[in-house]
Amino acid sequence: MSVFTPLTESDLKQWLSSYAVGQLRELKGIEAGVQNSNFFVTTTLGRFVLTLFESVPRAELPFYLNLMAHLARHGLPVPAPVADRDNDYLGSLHGRPATMVARLAGRSVETPTAQHCERLGAMLAGLHLAGQSYGRRQQNSRGPAWREATAAAVLPHLASEARALLEDELAFQRKLDGAPLPQGVIHADLFRDNVLWDGEFIGGVIDFYFACSDSLLLDVAVTVNDWCSDSEGRLDAGRCAALLEAYHADRPFTDAERAAWPGMLRRAALRFWLSRLADFHRPREGEMVLVKDPAEYHAILLARRTAPASAPLPV
Amino acid sequence: MSVFTPLTESDLKQWLSSYAVGQLRELKGIEAGVQNSNFFVTTTLGRFVLTLFESVPRAELPFYLNLMAHLARHGLPVPAPVADRDNDYLGSLHGRPATMVARLAGRSVETPTAQHCERLGAMLAGLHLAGQSYGRRQQNSRGPAWREATAAAVLPHLASEARALLEDELAFQRKLDGAPLPQGVIHADLFRDNVLWDGEFIGGVIDFYFACSDSLLLDVAVTVNDWCSDSEGRLDAGRCAALLEAYHADRPFTDAERAAWPGMLRRAALRFWLSRLADFHRPREGEMVLVKDPAEYHAILLARRTAPASAPLPV
Repeated sequence: MSVFTPLTESDLKQWLSSYAVGQLRELKGIEAGVQNSNFFVTTTLGRFVLTLFESVPRAELPFYLNLMAHLARHGLPVPAPVADRDNDYLGSLHGRPATMVARLAGRSVETPTAQHCERLGAMLAGLHLAGQSYGRRQQNSRGPAWREATAAAVLPHLASEARALLEDELAFQRKLDGAPLPQGVIHADLFRDNVLWDGEFIGGVIDFYFACSDSLLLDVAVTVNDWCSDSEGRLDAGRCAALLEAYHADRPFTDAERAAWPGMLRRAALRFWLSRLADFHRPREGEMVLVKDPAEYHAILLARRTAPASAPLPV
Repeated sequence: MSVFTPLTESDLKQWLSSYAVGQLRELKGIEAGVQNSNFFVTTTLGRFVLTLFESVPRAELPFYLNLMAHLARHGLPVPAPVADRDNDYLGSLHGRPATMVARLAGRSVETPTAQHCERLGAMLAGLHLAGQSYGRRQQNSRGPAWREATAAAVLPHLASEARALLEDELAFQRKLDGAPLPQGVIHADLFRDNVLWDGEFIGGVIDFYFACSDSLLLDVAVTVNDWCSDSEGRLDAGRCAALLEAYHADRPFTDAERAAWPGMLRRAALRFWLSRLADFHRPREGEMVLVKDPAEYHAILLARRTAPASAPLPV
């Protein structure tokens, strides 16, 4: 359950008096999400989502909120933060940083088709193109330094085979660091549950709280690993081709990206295997977070290592 | 018919290559509007409306487009202009200033209920509140100078009774000029066909090309005259009360506004009687514009003069 900070209608009326969105009609807690308290807020003028940040540092929030506003401004279905009457996106509620965003239409899909992947590829390209004019930068908090530190922390918990795999993969990834790949703002967590579908259209891309500045190709690899894997972790050729070709039509891949692609798929797999191992072996105390099974990304990493040429980038 | 400048799919593909909204799927001319060419544009990533400005001067457009962006940013259902990859809202197509905005859901209603008027009152208050932090200013192009000039031009065409009415009303309005009323950005043309309803919610407020800086109360009067009049031009008490009380709950009326209200309703009626008289007696050559009947606003003006206390502002 994900409402860590309960709110009353009276709290909300006070909060809304700083905005220009009319009077409160309904307030409802949302039972999803693992690091924030979220509420559906309906007013006379519209439908919004209110988020109280329980763990994201306040200093990082302007990067995320202004990025969401920037992408929405470029016509992408990203929840636009609502400015209050002082023109600010970020406020405070019960001592937490808080923001209200437009509520977007749609539901996530569990088993995407090639058609879903085609639209998603276009969306990811749009996000990367629009992101090129975003002025703020933020380091990837799940980059090389995190990778090494997290690997060191989980290694003692692993059986010998998994330990050997991890050590070999770390050595491989160190050689890939610094490859000359196109950089920009990436979502970095574009999993199926972060995309809302409204009929054939993407109604919303949500959860930008891992967004950062990194290789655009890493974002493509994270996305492909989640959307285009079968139950054994192998890539599905049809979904891969649909996603990659739609992306390529709007933001063509470079030769350097084509060369780095098999290694980048492994890097993206390793990042989620590591974070799930860390959550599994060191659950954060006092938080009722959903701990996801590390086995899924162990399988994906193994599959990417054994079939490095299974889904080449289009030329 | 309102597509003055025809566009081909090839024009559109070229235009879209400056944006981050995916590939063209459908292009369709819109047969509505009297001063621009409008098109529905559907891409892989969303649904938009493209407008080519046929008569609005390019220098005025940043006021309108940035206002729409400002209001959308504050959570109001206003079509947000889409920024291109250079972060600009305003481009050029076939030599015309052109912009693309988000396509909003909903349809206008011809015969509004008190419930519609209640939502609309809240929307107008929200628009005025959010407008207070908008930085740009633009004079009302339908203000006192226009009123005098237009009256002088149409007077020779009027029969003696209408001429006497106009001269008497002009004298009355001169005395109202400069009353100390709250000022801000106003829509100035919030007629029924400029509001799209999506179920019980307002899905969109459109057509900001008369927006300007003026008395907030003038906007309320323009809106009440269109939404709350019966077929004889008299105010409907139920719809008036619903609209005015909802507005007052979010942006309370001042004593000066209560005093000025009967005169402001007359001013708003005069403005549209005059513009319709001018269109009727001097149709613009070569343009296939819809000329609206001046009689409707003649009746509304007479009704406001004979029943000045029929819909007082709430206290």
